[in-house]
Amino acid sequence: MSEYQPPLSDMSFVMDHIVDIEAISKLEGYEHADRDTVEGLLSEAGRFAVEQIVPLNVVGDRQGVKVVDGSVQTADGFSAAYAKFVDAGWNGVSFDPDYGGGGLPWVVGLAVQELLTASCMAFSVCPLLTQGAIELLSAHGSEEQKETYLHHMISGAWTGTMNLTEPQAGSDVGALTTKATPDPDGSWRISGTKIFITYGDHDMADNIVHLVLARTPGAAPGTKGISCFVVPKYLVNDDGSLGERNDAHVVSTEHKLGIHASPTCVMSFGDNQGAVGYLIGEEGAGMRYMFTMMNAARLSVGLQGLALGERAYQQARNYALERVQGRPIGSDDSTATIEAHADVRRMLMTMKSNVEAMRALMYENAAAMDRAERHPDPDVRAHNDALAALYTPLSKGWGTDIGCEVTSLAVQVYGGMGYIEESGVAQHLRDLRIAPIYEGTNGIQALDLVFRKLPMNGGAVVMSLIDEMSATAASCAGTDLADIGERLSAAVADATSAGEYLGGQLALNPNAAAAGATPFLRLLGTVVGGWFHAKMAEVAQSKIDSGEGDEQASDKIATARFYAHQILPSTAGLVAPVTRGESSLYAIPAARL
Amino acid sequence: MSEYQPPLSDMSFVMDHIVDIEAISKLEGYEHADRDTVEGLLSEAGRFAVEQIVPLNVVGDRQGVKVVDGSVQTADGFSAAYAKFVDAGWNGVSFDPDYGGGGLPWVVGLAVQELLTASCMAFSVCPLLTQGAIELLSAHGSEEQKETYLHHMISGAWTGTMNLTEPQAGSDVGALTTKATPDPDGSWRISGTKIFITYGDHDMADNIVHLVLARTPGAAPGTKGISCFVVPKYLVNDDGSLGERNDAHVVSTEHKLGIHASPTCVMSFGDNQGAVGYLIGEEGAGMRYMFTMMNAARLSVGLQGLALGERAYQQARNYALERVQGRPIGSDDSTATIEAHADVRRMLMTMKSNVEAMRALMYENAAAMDRAERHPDPDVRAHNDALAALYTPLSKGWGTDIGCEVTSLAVQVYGGMGYIEESGVAQHLRDLRIAPIYEGTNGIQALDLVFRKLPMNGGAVVMSLIDEMSATAASCAGTDLADIGERLSAAVADATSAGEYLGGQLALNPNAAAAGATPFLRLLGTVVGGWFHAKMAEVAQSKIDSGEGDEQASDKIATARFYAHQILPSTAGLVAPVTRGESSLYAIPAARL
Repeated sequence: MSEYQPPLSDMSFVMDHIVDIEAISKLEGYEHADRDTVEGLLSEAGRFAVEQIVPLNVVGDRQGVKVVDGSVQTADGFSAAYAKFVDAGWNGVSFDPDYGGGGLPWVVGLAVQELLTASCMAFSVCPLLTQGAIELLSAHGSEEQKETYLHHMISGAWTGTMNLTEPQAGSDVGALTTKATPDPDGSWRISGTKIFITYGDHDMADNIVHLVLARTPGAAPGTKGISCFVVPKYLVNDDGSLGERNDAHVVSTEHKLGIHASPTCVMSFGDNQGAVGYLIGEEGAGMRYMFTMMNAARLSVGLQGLALGERAYQQARNYALERVQGRPIGSDDSTATIEAHADVRRMLMTMKSNVEAMRALMYENAAAMDRAERHPDPDVRAHNDALAALYTPLSKGWGTDIGCEVTSLAVQVYGGMGYIEESGVAQHLRDLRIAPIYEGTNGIQALDLVFRKLPMNGGAVVMSLIDEMSATAASCAGTDLADIGERLSAAVADATSAGEYLGGQLALNPNAAAAGATPFLRLLGTVVGGWFHAKMAEVAQSKIDSGEGDEQASDKIATARFYAHQILPSTAGLVAPVTRGESSLYAIPAARL
Repeated sequence: MSEYQPPLSDMSFVMDHIVDIEAISKLEGYEHADRDTVEGLLSEAGRFAVEQIVPLNVVGDRQGVKVVDGSVQTADGFSAAYAKFVDAGWNGVSFDPDYGGGGLPWVVGLAVQELLTASCMAFSVCPLLTQGAIELLSAHGSEEQKETYLHHMISGAWTGTMNLTEPQAGSDVGALTTKATPDPDGSWRISGTKIFITYGDHDMADNIVHLVLARTPGAAPGTKGISCFVVPKYLVNDDGSLGERNDAHVVSTEHKLGIHASPTCVMSFGDNQGAVGYLIGEEGAGMRYMFTMMNAARLSVGLQGLALGERAYQQARNYALERVQGRPIGSDDSTATIEAHADVRRMLMTMKSNVEAMRALMYENAAAMDRAERHPDPDVRAHNDALAALYTPLSKGWGTDIGCEVTSLAVQVYGGMGYIEESGVAQHLRDLRIAPIYEGTNGIQALDLVFRKLPMNGGAVVMSLIDEMSATAASCAGTDLADIGERLSAAVADATSAGEYLGGQLALNPNAAAAGATPFLRLLGTVVGGWFHAKMAEVAQSKIDSGEGDEQASDKIATARFYAHQILPSTAGLVAPVTRGESSLYAIPAARL
């Protein structure tokens, strides 16, 4: 089943020509991230992922996890592979060197994450949750808390969890009821039940650092009354050694559609003496702290769409290049493989071109976060910060929707064999189906895009993106890429008129804007994907024009052209749904639906 | 989990106003199918399905099937429920009364099938395969064969299977290698291995009648050399009693993404003395015979998209009407259920309007088959025959693609709970994912549409449909449905220009037509769905205009309007992909994909 090949040359193309990793490596603190170092690192990460992580994917799906004597047992090989992952230092690539991290740009960490996720998504979500906890603690923990936890979490020796959801509090985090009561010693006692806690318990690490949202006595209702606590599975002694077992326990794990090997836990805090927790930062600031890690976490979930899309594409392509079945239309070749059939070719190119669009968007999203953090010019920092904020709901919402479509196409390419679990291709579809749901449903991403991101700086951020996309379209005119430019230009016009409508409704009739949010997210994601393709095609064309054209250059143009003519036209069908308002959604009374 | 309610009033609306069941009941032989009888029958079938079949759905998914001592054991309750199904006569609704069938119109049988499929798809595919075998035997079997098998198969006491696929022969049936050698007694000995045989073995019936495609000695290569044989699991004695066990055995069953309770068998014929088979009709005519049952079988698979779409819609709606989570945009109501959120409402209406469009198309598809069979006017028969042929790839291809999208939306409405198998909603997605693959992949449906159906009568069939749709759009002008008519008119224009392009390419450059086939199927299916909605809206409007308007009438208009403004505009984005030709699909050499 190890058909997965790290897509290193596609990754490098984006690093070089979209992200400009050379420029990022000139930012303060990133000097060790020069192009060659990054390339070597990704190649090494790819080797590690293929050798150590890919073999977990199927066994994890088959075995799932078990609760034995109150603890979660992961599938065969997970614990050993995680130990190697920690030993090799892969967990800390992008984190603070002061606490043992690699200090590399976020975009490099994200690329490593792509390789890991594609190899075994159920494994990859363990470090993903640790990442969120590290970020939150780094930004808002006390020096003592950072000293106590961050070294171990950045190495990966200890893992992290995020405890937000309760049965009545999912998308509406503000409805949570878990309680925190102060203890005379300055710590707190946490009690309550949390659900959907990824890697809430497991046997892969010495300690698990739970970050738990809870209400303090007399706290305001809703999100303003929520505080954030660190609740370790094992308390940590003053000398840093592990002490008492804390009163935080897994109750059960869920039977899920996919990522079977990732324990999704019901967690009970404080069944007995009360779970000991330590307040992070200020009381009532828990939700605000969560938002500091939200962009990175959402981007990482969007990345799952890219990673499993790439994995599913490779598998479908390999199958299509081997499977002989019938003769393509207009051909007498009875030995042709199915990739020669127009419909199969359409599916493969749809997968490939979407995957490459996603990679460009998501890496650039991460790179914008790096520039926002480290660029010397405050204007550039601010612009990139806003750009990352704008890209994030696209990476998450569009990326995971498209990713799900790509994994489903892979099943279709396989035909009847795709429906048989042994072929391994249906697993990607099952695994990925959670991604449009968690870390803010894609409906919420669409609202975030329309209500928070469109109005940023009075609409200037989105307008500058529109201008940039128009400029790319214009620069294609009169060149060999003129057809791509024309399509992009039409799609940008669609995005502009849809965005203008929504901007107008925000104050006037917010629910009309909400009604158009989901198709608008799809529209803008599609256009931005087309824009990145056009930019990549321009790079490739200039290589060709200067006599340095190679196969990759010609394939990049071909992929961009397919996207421009086959994917991008869908924007024409999305303007009307965005701009129709909410009335047709609500014309039937709820009780008669 | 028995949240399923037979959608009787929606079914009746289509029967009355799209299908005109009253008119069909005037056709010779259908006189007992008057409106009230049909309504009573469907209500009775719905009760049976909910009481006896719905309870099988979850247990079947969990238990799957087992091969024990060389025989398939189905899940708890399947055998008992099947006995009740046979006893109540539900298997024979639309079959020949001379052999014990109910002799009702196909459209009535299809409606019963919808109820059964929605209740438990894994159960419903058993009678579905029997249906195909009955049709083939009815049309091409000898009198003796019909006498021997049809009574038992129409009652359901014996079930049927279709044995086409072999490992190297899936979509390309002509590549099969199973052999038939003549026996001196006039029978044949069949030997070979077949895969993906639905209900190839099971414990629910006394006998299983396998229809097997095989090659006779010296047969031509490809499909022309294929003959069809009837190979019963137990040979039938001259007195009609069951005799010797035939040499046809299940080897194993597949582990599938869904429909776990339906045994998908590897069948081995002739491992020992050779399986005894009886030639149906003429040697070399096997594929031709298969085509006689193809339209009905494809329609029935399309129906799975409708049935599971309806089931998933109902479940998501019920959840959305109960689940409280956050406040809708612009509302202060913290007790609002999630259906009030614009994005959830969009998902529910997308599901509902697509399901209703599918039902209208598929029932009318079946009714066209009834008219083609029984109408006294040969021109009407011919026209309806052609219309059914045109609708069939839409029912199958568009219906199952949309059905899969609808089941996925149901998971999304459930949010995190949708990913947990206990909620039961992910099962619909898993179960239905086979439907775009089997009975001719949807890629093959698209080729069938473009290469066989578009050119029928020199294009006159599709042109008459276009004209009818345009006439409906025109008749909406100047009425309260003018906006719906405008949208329909634009969509019909999209379908017309795309169809004209394809028609022009058929002879000129067939692979350009093949390259556009899949988006064209989507385009035409979407437009036809919008047309049926407009027709239903016109009926509802005329009720309202004549003072007989009720809640159903107003809801039908609201659903049609949603479809017109939110779904139909997608056709604008499909013309370009249809009409771009094949070059952008093939610009990258296969080896570099």
